[in-house]
Amino acid sequence: MTTKNNRENIFSQLRKDLVSGTWVLFSTKRNQRPDCFKNRERKNEKEKNEKDCLFCKENISNQEEDTLVYTKKDNDWSLKVFPNKFPALSSEYKDINKREYGPFEVIDGIGYHEVLVTEDHNLDMAELEVIQIAEILDAYQDRYVSLMNRKHIKYISIFKNYGYDAGASIRHPHSQIVAMPIIDPDVFRSINGSEEYFRVHTECVHCVMIGWEKESGKRMIFENEDFIVVCPFVSRVSFEMRVYPKRHLSYFERITDVQKIKLAEAMKFCLSKLKKNLNDASYNMFLHTSPCDGKTYDHYHWHFEIFPKTNTWAGLELSTGIEICAILPERAAEILRK
Amino acid sequence: MTTKNNRENIFSQLRKDLVSGTWVLFSTKRNQRPDCFKNRERKNEKEKNEKDCLFCKENISNQEEDTLVYTKKDNDWSLKVFPNKFPALSSEYKDINKREYGPFEVIDGIGYHEVLVTEDHNLDMAELEVIQIAEILDAYQDRYVSLMNRKHIKYISIFKNYGYDAGASIRHPHSQIVAMPIIDPDVFRSINGSEEYFRVHTECVHCVMIGWEKESGKRMIFENEDFIVVCPFVSRVSFEMRVYPKRHLSYFERITDVQKIKLAEAMKFCLSKLKKNLNDASYNMFLHTSPCDGKTYDHYHWHFEIFPKTNTWAGLELSTGIEICAILPERAAEILRK
Repeated sequence: MTTKNNRENIFSQLRKDLVSGTWVLFSTKRNQRPDCFKNRERKNEKEKNEKDCLFCKENISNQEEDTLVYTKKDNDWSLKVFPNKFPALSSEYKDINKREYGPFEVIDGIGYHEVLVTEDHNLDMAELEVIQIAEILDAYQDRYVSLMNRKHIKYISIFKNYGYDAGASIRHPHSQIVAMPIIDPDVFRSINGSEEYFRVHTECVHCVMIGWEKESGKRMIFENEDFIVVCPFVSRVSFEMRVYPKRHLSYFERITDVQKIKLAEAMKFCLSKLKKNLNDASYNMFLHTSPCDGKTYDHYHWHFEIFPKTNTWAGLELSTGIEICAILPERAAEILRK
Repeated sequence: MTTKNNRENIFSQLRKDLVSGTWVLFSTKRNQRPDCFKNRERKNEKEKNEKDCLFCKENISNQEEDTLVYTKKDNDWSLKVFPNKFPALSSEYKDINKREYGPFEVIDGIGYHEVLVTEDHNLDMAELEVIQIAEILDAYQDRYVSLMNRKHIKYISIFKNYGYDAGASIRHPHSQIVAMPIIDPDVFRSINGSEEYFRVHTECVHCVMIGWEKESGKRMIFENEDFIVVCPFVSRVSFEMRVYPKRHLSYFERITDVQKIKLAEAMKFCLSKLKKNLNDASYNMFLHTSPCDGKTYDHYHWHFEIFPKTNTWAGLELSTGIEICAILPERAAEILRK
């Protein structure tokens, strides 16, 4: 009952900026109090033990009903997906309800927000076996396919925040899946940039970059049969890593079982390097793939990006959109390869 | 001599993303070592006392030669501007040296990066007198006018980072002025959005928003003869504040002395509220004004934005460009007005 009440109290609204065209998602619980905002108070999530962990076996029954469960031989679960108890977008809205608010455009925050957890409180993705990471990728795909054709859904974001500095408020290893009713201009810019390059050069811009990186080798840090990892020539943050399928693949949801294993190998390599060579850095990892708005995006090339949390975007980044990177990707790759 | 050597060791390069068209600024000291990157180590800048402060009177002679000095009656300085010892962009490059690097476009990071400090180590902008804040604005204008017509300079960013969480590595109150040879697509998007609105509606989009906000009153938090402060309807962060001139003004560098006093009043109000009502929140404050690339931007409406550091942009923001805001600006305004 409590769970149900919580969800009914969700207020979720998307407001479109009149000047830049970007969207902001307002997601609040009703009657939110000002003292919920505390600055400079750093939760030490490391101290939270399994007993208090909402995502550990003993307590997880308090969550919503499971959406997806993978079980082990002993019938105990090894991986679960369930609706976020405090979703950024809510499936309870009946429609998108597009309307004007003064000069602004507003829609209801209709969508899905799910959480994926793995069993062990203390083993993060870097420490899992390759096959267990492949299982996570399999669950990503399963949920993607289930959500992509639902009404109003145009884009699905899959991401993982690791560590307090990267915005993870819960320590237990988890990923998030957010299915949303809009495609932000930031995503369009990337999609359109890729399409425009294809139109002019009749080649995929990502394939060209991968070919160039392979030839140079300077920024490459990992390669297997199906995947390649580089510190991109134009890294937005220090030690950024990008995991590309070597073949031109446009739709993540079509990933094969063999590719999942190969991708899991690449991810394990990257995340282990962050742990060992970069002092267990916090990070955000996310998928970039084609929108699921019914159009074709054959020019696009899906990939995962890993952003270690190495610095704070401050005045210059916020005012001009120009990121400052304190280390060259060529040097970052040297350090990560070690 | 040391100073000179430091500057010669600056490597600054702008690389353009092949897909999105955005720029990243790589700014490194040569031979940077990997151990300069330490994650999860929070410098407690509060503990740094004046004796160790590079920007305090006794130590400031170690900085570069002053660019601008305001003195008091006793001939001691009250405000100084000088070149950043570790500039993000360097004036030592002879030219922009645009070139191709594989499929990428690269230019040298030619430009200017200056620091403005006020005298008192412990009095931040919120605690200064209105006339002292107006003096800072006067210095902003002075430096803007001096830099805007220099060769290669197309955009000038003026910003202030306050508090460790907002990226301020030095506690002594300071602002930064960065004159750069490019206009990022993020700035263009804002400028073009404003221009497009003007073309369609023959009105300034910011004037329309200000008029609507005044009528509603819900998100207004301050007003005097010349300036108005609102929590924008589409706030990108919780408790965002935007300080607008009430008249349509396109070029910050033309601000009058009277307007400086009135703007200083508005800023003092905003920053005091962050201190008192939001637990001394860290913040980034920055100017948005017309580019200085020789074109006219009469449709634009300059303003200052204040972003309290209330949350971390994580996986969803980084992957989709959609910011999540946990408090409505209507509620934020109520809290800030108190």
